[in-house]
Amino acid sequence: MLSFGNWTLSRPMPAQESNFQVAGFGKAQVKKSDIRLDADSDSTKKAMDTISRRGACVTSIASSSAASLEIEVRPQGLCEGYNVRRLHRDDYHKGLGALLSQLTVGDLAEERFLEMFHLRESQAGVYHTFVIEHLETHRLVATATLIVEAKFVHGGSFVGHIEDVVVDDSHRRKGLAKSLMDAVAHEAQRLKCYKVILDCNETNVPVYEKCGYRVGERQMRLDIPPETSASGS
Amino acid sequence: MLSFGNWTLSRPMPAQESNFQVAGFGKAQVKKSDIRLDADSDSTKKAMDTISRRGACVTSIASSSAASLEIEVRPQGLCEGYNVRRLHRDDYHKGLGALLSQLTVGDLAEERFLEMFHLRESQAGVYHTFVIEHLETHRLVATATLIVEAKFVHGGSFVGHIEDVVVDDSHRRKGLAKSLMDAVAHEAQRLKCYKVILDCNETNVPVYEKCGYRVGERQMRLDIPPETSASGS
Repeated sequence: MLSFGNWTLSRPMPAQESNFQVAGFGKAQVKKSDIRLDADSDSTKKAMDTISRRGACVTSIASSSAASLEIEVRPQGLCEGYNVRRLHRDDYHKGLGALLSQLTVGDLAEERFLEMFHLRESQAGVYHTFVIEHLETHRLVATATLIVEAKFVHGGSFVGHIEDVVVDDSHRRKGLAKSLMDAVAHEAQRLKCYKVILDCNETNVPVYEKCGYRVGERQMRLDIPPETSASGS
Repeated sequence: MLSFGNWTLSRPMPAQESNFQVAGFGKAQVKKSDIRLDADSDSTKKAMDTISRRGACVTSIASSSAASLEIEVRPQGLCEGYNVRRLHRDDYHKGLGALLSQLTVGDLAEERFLEMFHLRESQAGVYHTFVIEHLETHRLVATATLIVEAKFVHGGSFVGHIEDVVVDDSHRRKGLAKSLMDAVAHEAQRLKCYKVILDCNETNVPVYEKCGYRVGERQMRLDIPPETSASGS
């Protein structure tokens, strides 16, 4: 075990020069070129501070090579036995559909999941879907999606929209929602959003207030009937 | 003048075979291959019905060639002297920044506008920004943006988010907001959204209720401070 201030790595980190490029959460590349990994060096402290501000901690070294070192990063406070990371293409069989069905109606077929996953990938930079995986069962037990909107207002800036937040019934009261929302907020900050907004029913207002949110505007909704004509496109 | 049922074209439409592919509003391609443009033919009526359901009317023939015919389509009820269409790259000098400044703070520099326009174009299918142009002054007097979100819930479906709706102070009380919101809603329908949502302050609830919207959920908001560290990316 190696400690850097408040940080502990589960395996010793080689004493090469490295640079933390922490891209949100999940795995992070540590390039062995820019800063020394001495516990006392200013640059190491800066890298650790960057992770710290994002509410994350380095939990383990995933792999290392001559050129780089891959570390696992997760939000501070995330319950033991869980991992927060981005959604992968092969996550369908880890119970994503069952998890989302706790949020609203509609079965998610694998083919449709892959179509939508591919569509989202083709619109690079818009969708950032996070999941929490229960490490023992390899099931997804929470998810939330950040949509990054490029705006013309505010001088041309970015706003994050959070959609489809759900924590599995049987994994509640462990602070998973807070860890998930922290991960999303830190990603929004990294992507230079000046605010994030979400819509929820009145019952869930206190949940988001605990995550630092405040009540904002009113959502208005228009339901749209599908087009029925054969000549409609 | 030529009439098809309730429809009037400002110039006679050549009696060739054509197919209406009405992509929202603005200009629409009419391909001379699929259906006959006889006033009494079923296929012409179908094409006209499709436009009608979208609350649009054909206002003029913009251009024609051997292969296709371009017609101007605009929402029914749009005040004379105005045109609703998609935002173009060269619209910056038609007063977009001044219009948006009535909505919120922040000057929009031309360079930044073009950066954001390019970014939005690279994320094909997400952004659909409509504007209303005052034909006499060539100034943009209203705008609204539809963002189409690809969802995993609802069996893999689409939801429209409406953002940054504004009508110029000096062009109000002419029904422009209604025409604009109709255009956006019909585009959302064409793009297979099952609902559209937007956030507004309590004062504007009646405006959207007139457009068919109902009060929905609560918006929650989190303001995000920018990252300040030199090592932050």
